[in-house]
Amino acid sequence: MKLFDGGRAPNPRRVRVFLAEKGIAVPLVPVDMGALEHKGQTVSSRNPLRRLPVLELDDGTVITESVAICRYFEELHPEPALFGRGALGKAQVEMWQRRMEFNLLGCVAQAFRHIHPAMKEWEIPQIPEWGEANKPKALEFLKILNGELAKREFAAGDGYSIADITGLIAIDFMKPARIKVPEECTNVLRWHQAISSRPSAAA
Amino acid sequence: MKLFDGGRAPNPRRVRVFLAEKGIAVPLVPVDMGALEHKGQTVSSRNPLRRLPVLELDDGTVITESVAICRYFEELHPEPALFGRGALGKAQVEMWQRRMEFNLLGCVAQAFRHIHPAMKEWEIPQIPEWGEANKPKALEFLKILNGELAKREFAAGDGYSIADITGLIAIDFMKPARIKVPEECTNVLRWHQAISSRPSAAA
Repeated sequence: MKLFDGGRAPNPRRVRVFLAEKGIAVPLVPVDMGALEHKGQTVSSRNPLRRLPVLELDDGTVITESVAICRYFEELHPEPALFGRGALGKAQVEMWQRRMEFNLLGCVAQAFRHIHPAMKEWEIPQIPEWGEANKPKALEFLKILNGELAKREFAAGDGYSIADITGLIAIDFMKPARIKVPEECTNVLRWHQAISSRPSAAA
Repeated sequence: MKLFDGGRAPNPRRVRVFLAEKGIAVPLVPVDMGALEHKGQTVSSRNPLRRLPVLELDDGTVITESVAICRYFEELHPEPALFGRGALGKAQVEMWQRRMEFNLLGCVAQAFRHIHPAMKEWEIPQIPEWGEANKPKALEFLKILNGELAKREFAAGDGYSIADITGLIAIDFMKPARIKVPEECTNVLRWHQAISSRPSAAA
């Protein structure tokens, strides 16, 4: 088994943090995304969408999409449960995982890719107006999240989950996207500090 | 239990098709999205993101996000399995579900929301250039999907899954978004016809 990894990019990091929380070591094959190596033969022969991360099993079977790779490991190593427990718990993790993806990570990524000059070759056509339109969407969601985090410790309840991992990566990605967590979002800041101080965050 | 439903919109339909495949009947509460009723008190008091569908359990607990609602029912009624079986099968359904969402349904939705005049009050600001940029993305994915569907009957393998439901809804949504499946994508057309003829497609 090997994991084709993309270094500092948000999606590869999601899987590394997940594996660190599970205590699972998977051999990494580094791919230099800065040099656009993920567009080359090594990745495209395994993932026609030419994106990372890519997990290759020993029989050559390939799994792509960060959350699909995480789910594979959750099924093989159920503890600690990072996708929730029971019908309601699993639904609530899925709900918050998707809210974090569509309303935070996705918006931050669009702002970064459509505004940052370094992304010109990545996002064609680059549309700065669309990038700018995503910044208030991310901020609006942070306000909602702040209200929710007043009621509990983690995104989806009282246990750490993959929704927190996606949230951590999204907040960290706000720095290169040049969006700041508003100071009044004190619960978001408390939560981000707590999940950032877990050893897995360094993965 | 009741499901606040949004009629013809793609996401509410995903849940209805899923429930039809499972043979589960849930009382529907219709919300008129054409009249922007999902921005009103009934929905916003249950989902701060003001979107449909919304599932409310008998104790008042709310689950939002189409796929989270589907997962809740999958856990309660595992058969027929629509999220896959076994670690690899579940990972493959998740992979294809996400590919369908991010590379097809998402692109089609962006094209529709940023170009169609009726969406002016829904998508602020409406950026037609961004809508147009999504059309070739959707077409590029359809070519990849066509190659995959040459090898098997359904999106994620030999069994119908939630990835097919998301694909069905995405292809049907191409009509109002004014994108056409290229004639040479014969496997996509065969697959779409097959899943459209299942009784659940009428849900």
